[in-house]
Amino acid sequence: MPHPILINGQWIASSATKTFQAVNPATEETLPGEYPVSPWSEIDEMLQVAADTAKEMRGWSGSRFAEFLEAYATEIEARADALVAAAHEETGLPVSPRLKDGELPRTTNQLRQAAEAARTESWRNPVIDTATGIRSILGPIGPVVVFGPNNFPFAFNGIAGGDFAAAIAAGNPVIAKGHSSHPKTTRIFAEAALAAITATNMPAGLVQLVYRTSHEDGYKLVSDSRIGAAGYTGARHTGLKLKAAADAVGKPIYMELSSINPVFVLDGALAERSEALADEFSGSCLMGTGQFCTNPGLVIVPNTGAGQQFVEAVAARFGKASVGTMLSASVQQSFAAGVATIQKAGAKVLAGGTAGGGKGVSFSNTLMTVSGTQFLSDPEIFQTEAFGNGSLIVLADSVEQMAAIAESLEGNLTGCIYSDTTGNDDEAYNVIEPALRTKVGRLLNDKMPTGVAVSPAMNHGGPFPATCHPGFTAVGLPGSAARFAMLQCYDNVRPARLPATLQDSNPAGIWRRVDGKWTTENV
Amino acid sequence: MPHPILINGQWIASSATKTFQAVNPATEETLPGEYPVSPWSEIDEMLQVAADTAKEMRGWSGSRFAEFLEAYATEIEARADALVAAAHEETGLPVSPRLKDGELPRTTNQLRQAAEAARTESWRNPVIDTATGIRSILGPIGPVVVFGPNNFPFAFNGIAGGDFAAAIAAGNPVIAKGHSSHPKTTRIFAEAALAAITATNMPAGLVQLVYRTSHEDGYKLVSDSRIGAAGYTGARHTGLKLKAAADAVGKPIYMELSSINPVFVLDGALAERSEALADEFSGSCLMGTGQFCTNPGLVIVPNTGAGQQFVEAVAARFGKASVGTMLSASVQQSFAAGVATIQKAGAKVLAGGTAGGGKGVSFSNTLMTVSGTQFLSDPEIFQTEAFGNGSLIVLADSVEQMAAIAESLEGNLTGCIYSDTTGNDDEAYNVIEPALRTKVGRLLNDKMPTGVAVSPAMNHGGPFPATCHPGFTAVGLPGSAARFAMLQCYDNVRPARLPATLQDSNPAGIWRRVDGKWTTENV
Repeated sequence: MPHPILINGQWIASSATKTFQAVNPATEETLPGEYPVSPWSEIDEMLQVAADTAKEMRGWSGSRFAEFLEAYATEIEARADALVAAAHEETGLPVSPRLKDGELPRTTNQLRQAAEAARTESWRNPVIDTATGIRSILGPIGPVVVFGPNNFPFAFNGIAGGDFAAAIAAGNPVIAKGHSSHPKTTRIFAEAALAAITATNMPAGLVQLVYRTSHEDGYKLVSDSRIGAAGYTGARHTGLKLKAAADAVGKPIYMELSSINPVFVLDGALAERSEALADEFSGSCLMGTGQFCTNPGLVIVPNTGAGQQFVEAVAARFGKASVGTMLSASVQQSFAAGVATIQKAGAKVLAGGTAGGGKGVSFSNTLMTVSGTQFLSDPEIFQTEAFGNGSLIVLADSVEQMAAIAESLEGNLTGCIYSDTTGNDDEAYNVIEPALRTKVGRLLNDKMPTGVAVSPAMNHGGPFPATCHPGFTAVGLPGSAARFAMLQCYDNVRPARLPATLQDSNPAGIWRRVDGKWTTENV
Repeated sequence: MPHPILINGQWIASSATKTFQAVNPATEETLPGEYPVSPWSEIDEMLQVAADTAKEMRGWSGSRFAEFLEAYATEIEARADALVAAAHEETGLPVSPRLKDGELPRTTNQLRQAAEAARTESWRNPVIDTATGIRSILGPIGPVVVFGPNNFPFAFNGIAGGDFAAAIAAGNPVIAKGHSSHPKTTRIFAEAALAAITATNMPAGLVQLVYRTSHEDGYKLVSDSRIGAAGYTGARHTGLKLKAAADAVGKPIYMELSSINPVFVLDGALAERSEALADEFSGSCLMGTGQFCTNPGLVIVPNTGAGQQFVEAVAARFGKASVGTMLSASVQQSFAAGVATIQKAGAKVLAGGTAGGGKGVSFSNTLMTVSGTQFLSDPEIFQTEAFGNGSLIVLADSVEQMAAIAESLEGNLTGCIYSDTTGNDDEAYNVIEPALRTKVGRLLNDKMPTGVAVSPAMNHGGPFPATCHPGFTAVGLPGSAARFAMLQCYDNVRPARLPATLQDSNPAGIWRRVDGKWTTENV
């Protein structure tokens, strides 16, 4: 008997004929607990509940959603030990500092920031044009389906992470699709969400959970007429099929598909602090066994003595560093395949390159190099994403070649440039930056991309294939909530019939753009 | 020898082997002037020029684009007589008030509002988070391809209309694809644009023009790696193919595909002002021979004596009103096909229903009715868009049935509710409005949807198939410009390297969100 699924506030026995179990990647043992692969009938029921819930919640004030999000954060904290234990077992990620002290507080912090965005309506962009009598505001888009990834069992979980928090902040019900690698973690979140729903008197259909569906049912789900939008973080191949299904019926789908996060290190920076940079890069690249969306997978350094020395220094660190456990056998296989592709294309392996070396599912810390000329001979193949504890260093012959490499890149979440502190690299920076700027969502100076602060100015996004629309961020309120919204305009609508936030009086002091000026005043 | 095309500031002879000519719909005569169907080699050249131009303009201040847009508006005004004459000849639209006094001033006004948005950077949403050192802003997305429609030769022209103005305001070069029905009008705009480019010392590649391509080359164009995004207003069938091509490679494409703009008339409103409403509706529906994106093509009235009287009053007006010239034979054929589909599904024709009746290409003013029950038996077929001087009136049995009809609708640009002025209809309004609200971009009270003010609060958008993303508007600055932007985040970037608009000092007094508060002050 598999674990039940959460439909309309009830834990319902699934009629699934297929089930799955998670595997502990550190021991390679199958974990207890069978979880269902839900048939379409169950998804269909959830969709109907979600659509009814969206109708029920039309016009509700942001504070109701804020109360739920805050209660949920508290319920999560009450289950912290169980969540951390489950996630550790299911993902191999270290308990401390990663899960307990890093990712869990980040997750509850994000839920609380989403509550703040809901309460202050900072995501809604109210615009009032008194001359024409037209007013507009962002409103909920409708039920949101969230597919969480494997690499952040808390902070990006479909039922607790960034997309979830954003969708709820914008006043939408969520159908969460848990990731198959950590169902128990997801189940505990669902229990906490249900407790928070009850505590704050929200509709039972606000949060529903399905553990797994067939691929075909996934395509049906994201293109169903009852949903408003979907969010997906995961593998490019699967993502593109979901995208095609959603696009065909004009349903927005926000995706995070692939990013190798180029880092450019300029001459002066190497001259000034080569050893420190080797430490910083190695630490960033191997952290979490390299399984971050923002992992620096491509480094471009000058093909000089100093550049070659940097490569050797990194290779030595990769060789010495302990090898982490990967999230799953399929992550390890994909990583091995990515490394093999890059190697076959002509890159030289300086460290690692072989399976094993760590506890359980693992692959040695892998460093490869290639010349700038070779990279430019086939930029596509050398941009193959190898998601894990490895990186490719390109030895570039000139600043112009560095800029050409930047121009040859696909869209990425991030791009970094390291330069010296005295201005010697400024000329080179000015050549490379314009090329890099349009290829990445977030541009960094002198800092590795791995950290993604939950800041209103954050952009965790970028041109395709990093995401599927370069105008949006998946992290950082209120921007992330605005993705799950539709623009609602009121033309000549009688004053009493306007949403409270668009009426003349503004007792809550919400920021509104009135006749071109931002203000918290009444009209 | 066909007319040349505009590539990189030069009028270049096309190597086209196919050409086309426009037709005067009022006389049904072919107009002089052959225009080329450009081969891919010419599109490819434009794409390269546009990509190079986008690079050249990186980081340019908004005021440069503002100067161009203002100069362009002036150049258009200098050619007003020629533009009006050409458009009248090519579209059959009346010179006055439509073209000369309405659409042309609207177009230059829109260009000037776009200039204002560029100069004040109101579309850029600068966000500064001093605690984390992260700052972000919208920046140009890259070359934009604009496909203009047939029905607004000025205000939505690919080289002068809303998408064009928005794309330039956001700092992007434009490749305009003129509509085949009015090439001469488009050519005069291109001459004006080129004069403005020269006058303001902008790059020659800022605005380029192709008159026509094969369908296949259109798909290649919107999915080319060198473009940033595309805009398209036109037929749903063609639009969906362009969308599929762009979506497959993650290129944003903004489309306006279809909208029937439902109007609900409640009991009290009919009791209070039935004759006036019949006038108002007939005027709106037949204006411009009904060829507006926001034409009211579906009216829902109570199935009462008053409702039936309203239907008869409208039918009488449709019968008496003069029949306008349609834009082209293909518009007339599509309209006839739409009417036939709706009639075949069971609607009764109360007025019109036959081809001809006006000058040149025309179709009689057509009014159909159907019962609410019948409508709900096949809502899809009764929502067939019949683009032209006609409408379908649904006689609904109850307020609940009206709400069910609202729920059954596809996405639309607009939705209207007419109610009485004393509050008798408020209960019915409160039942229908929530259902209608999520289906339309713009909700109106007591006002026909045909007018689309260029207001910052306007939403000329809506859920699919009205558009392909309900979060954006195609009309109204600064929102329309934000569509052609990417989100650019700066993390730990050295102060002097930030874009001027994100630096601490804010001498231009641009509105920025600093630590959660909107301000024009320095940091």
